[in-house]
Amino acid sequence: MPDAMTDRDGPFMPGPRLEIAGAPDGPLAGLGFAVKDLYDVAGSPTGYGNPDWARTNPPAAATAPVVQSLLQAGASLRGKTKTVELAYGLTGENVWYGTPVNPAAPDRFPGGSSCGSAAAVAAGLVDFSMGSDTGGSVRIPASYCGVFGIRPSWGAISLAGARGLGPSFDTPGWFAARASVLARVGQVLLPEDGAGPGLGPLLKVDDAWINAVPATVVALAEPMLVLERLFGRALRVDVAPEGLDALYEHFRCAQAEEAWATLGSWVEAVGPEFGPGVKERFAAARAMDPAKAAAGRAFRRGFQARMRALLAGGAVLVYPTSPVPAPKLEASQAEQNAVRERSMGVTAIAGLAGLPEVSLPVGRAEGAPVGLSLVAAAGRDRALLDLAERLAAELGLPV
Amino acid sequence: MPDAMTDRDGPFMPGPRLEIAGAPDGPLAGLGFAVKDLYDVAGSPTGYGNPDWARTNPPAAATAPVVQSLLQAGASLRGKTKTVELAYGLTGENVWYGTPVNPAAPDRFPGGSSCGSAAAVAAGLVDFSMGSDTGGSVRIPASYCGVFGIRPSWGAISLAGARGLGPSFDTPGWFAARASVLARVGQVLLPEDGAGPGLGPLLKVDDAWINAVPATVVALAEPMLVLERLFGRALRVDVAPEGLDALYEHFRCAQAEEAWATLGSWVEAVGPEFGPGVKERFAAARAMDPAKAAAGRAFRRGFQARMRALLAGGAVLVYPTSPVPAPKLEASQAEQNAVRERSMGVTAIAGLAGLPEVSLPVGRAEGAPVGLSLVAAAGRDRALLDLAERLAAELGLPV
Repeated sequence: MPDAMTDRDGPFMPGPRLEIAGAPDGPLAGLGFAVKDLYDVAGSPTGYGNPDWARTNPPAAATAPVVQSLLQAGASLRGKTKTVELAYGLTGENVWYGTPVNPAAPDRFPGGSSCGSAAAVAAGLVDFSMGSDTGGSVRIPASYCGVFGIRPSWGAISLAGARGLGPSFDTPGWFAARASVLARVGQVLLPEDGAGPGLGPLLKVDDAWINAVPATVVALAEPMLVLERLFGRALRVDVAPEGLDALYEHFRCAQAEEAWATLGSWVEAVGPEFGPGVKERFAAARAMDPAKAAAGRAFRRGFQARMRALLAGGAVLVYPTSPVPAPKLEASQAEQNAVRERSMGVTAIAGLAGLPEVSLPVGRAEGAPVGLSLVAAAGRDRALLDLAERLAAELGLPV
Repeated sequence: MPDAMTDRDGPFMPGPRLEIAGAPDGPLAGLGFAVKDLYDVAGSPTGYGNPDWARTNPPAAATAPVVQSLLQAGASLRGKTKTVELAYGLTGENVWYGTPVNPAAPDRFPGGSSCGSAAAVAAGLVDFSMGSDTGGSVRIPASYCGVFGIRPSWGAISLAGARGLGPSFDTPGWFAARASVLARVGQVLLPEDGAGPGLGPLLKVDDAWINAVPATVVALAEPMLVLERLFGRALRVDVAPEGLDALYEHFRCAQAEEAWATLGSWVEAVGPEFGPGVKERFAAARAMDPAKAAAGRAFRRGFQARMRALLAGGAVLVYPTSPVPAPKLEASQAEQNAVRERSMGVTAIAGLAGLPEVSLPVGRAEGAPVGLSLVAAAGRDRALLDLAERLAAELGLPV
């Protein structure tokens, strides 16, 4: 598949591939990885998915510490991958460089914004890849492309040398085809877990399950049974009595204000061309009512406290990563928006609360992959990765 | 004093003062504040202490959420304040715009990098002011200028719309002349505290006290007695058996790598002119050995775990904010560097571990102010501010 792939279909940025050999030994020796083109690599441009960004910013003078850590741990860089423009979108579309084909469902979007990183892993071109996640940009493409993905606890890993979209939401994140590789990368990048009890019990998040389409729920039924055999019967909770729509709305307002605070000056100064959807989102960010953003931030505080209390004893939330499989490539902008809103009500759970979330590629619905998410208390990332690896073995997924 | 002050001596950026009225009511109504000139205010340039930065970056298109929150809470903006160039320095010197006079010790440096914000509060020109802190840039000027200051838990408050120096270390922070104002600002900006026990006991950090000059220790003796009357006799601990020098060195290496990852591309592309000290620090950041930076990050993980264990039960660290009073204006670069290294061994405690630290203006040594710091577990910022307010009342400081 990669050989026949054109640059426009492929996951990597067009042009010569950026390759750097890793250290000769280390915990990731022998593994190949790719990085989303919003991480700096010294001497190379950081394109951030938009030609005007690439044109108006100098080549990176330094390599992001995250990338340096991976190289030092022995992994070799195999290229930079496409991203949605300024990471502001969830389908994975990029009209400038081409939308990467979803190897697991070629008639559907790969998911974004870390589209190229997810697709490169799904196509078997690299062992793992770095993405980033503000509102679902790792979790959604992991689900759509049928690979493992993690959004770590907010703040656990430095984003120095990586372009941001909303600093109080942004996290790095990574994809892998095998659960053990997902965990090994975590052992290199993550700080030690905070003290805490063993993980469990399982909490089945009713509001997120009700939000999913039947085909997704059916695809996840068998994996849930396996999970319950391991952990005992799941308890059932609602995390958002105000509705997932409200979570999404608060997330959207607070995040849009940060997006404009972060990128607005560049947008105003350069007047970049944007593809469909991205343009509208920046226009909305620019017009965001500060009172709505403040209400979003106030809601976030309360929601964080609620989730902290719920998860302090070790409980693990479980729900469909995305309520629907990847939209088809021919989906209208309105259909894409509907999927976006429905999905972000779910991704906002970990997004607002800063929680670590691992998506496991457990099933298929409507001919496309769907992921199952496990979410733990902030700071329990390593324990969560261990759990995901154990669960993958039980489910017969690649370990 | 302010009337006779020239722009070069004053705490504010030269030129017309940026003023914005706050909302008519709210918890901070009636208070005036200033912001360090690294926070964006829509329509105004963000100078970041360096004329080449101001020249090569467009005026801000959006206002930083932190500033919006303060305006919405009723506080009125009275101006933007000087900062050390790119926030990379601790004395408070700025050769381009002039070093703000330290109102509490006019023959000495005001401390930095948030020099103008501390000086504006110390001069009584505003009720509070926003600074930022990567390696001591709020705590040091609070101590030097004799005002209250807080560096909150890392990650507690969004830095969207603020220029960064090392994202995994950077925090906002603020100064106030009165303890109650320091706390009221926290009630607007900080999320709710995580669950945790009441604060106490006191832990007197021997390594930081031994590091201080005798005049500082003498100045803080009486306040310590008051503290012990309130909390019971302090226990004594060493937080850094490897030495404060080692803390500083690990901090310096990890932070320099981030500084270069964050700002190196701009430095390389623009070739800015820098004042003394700043130039050398960027040269060192550029040349930082990635293995040393990685060792610094690895050390940080262990240190964070150590401090988490020490503080989980509610313990509060107490030590001199700065081991020496502000250096005199005529101090040589070598003398300044010696103070810098000695001070940063102490500021690295909260800096590496991401802990909240409040500095109280409790005494004077060698004719200049010295501060006493209280440090709690991450996420206990509000409890710490309450404690500082109570303590200020007992000590007869402005409440």
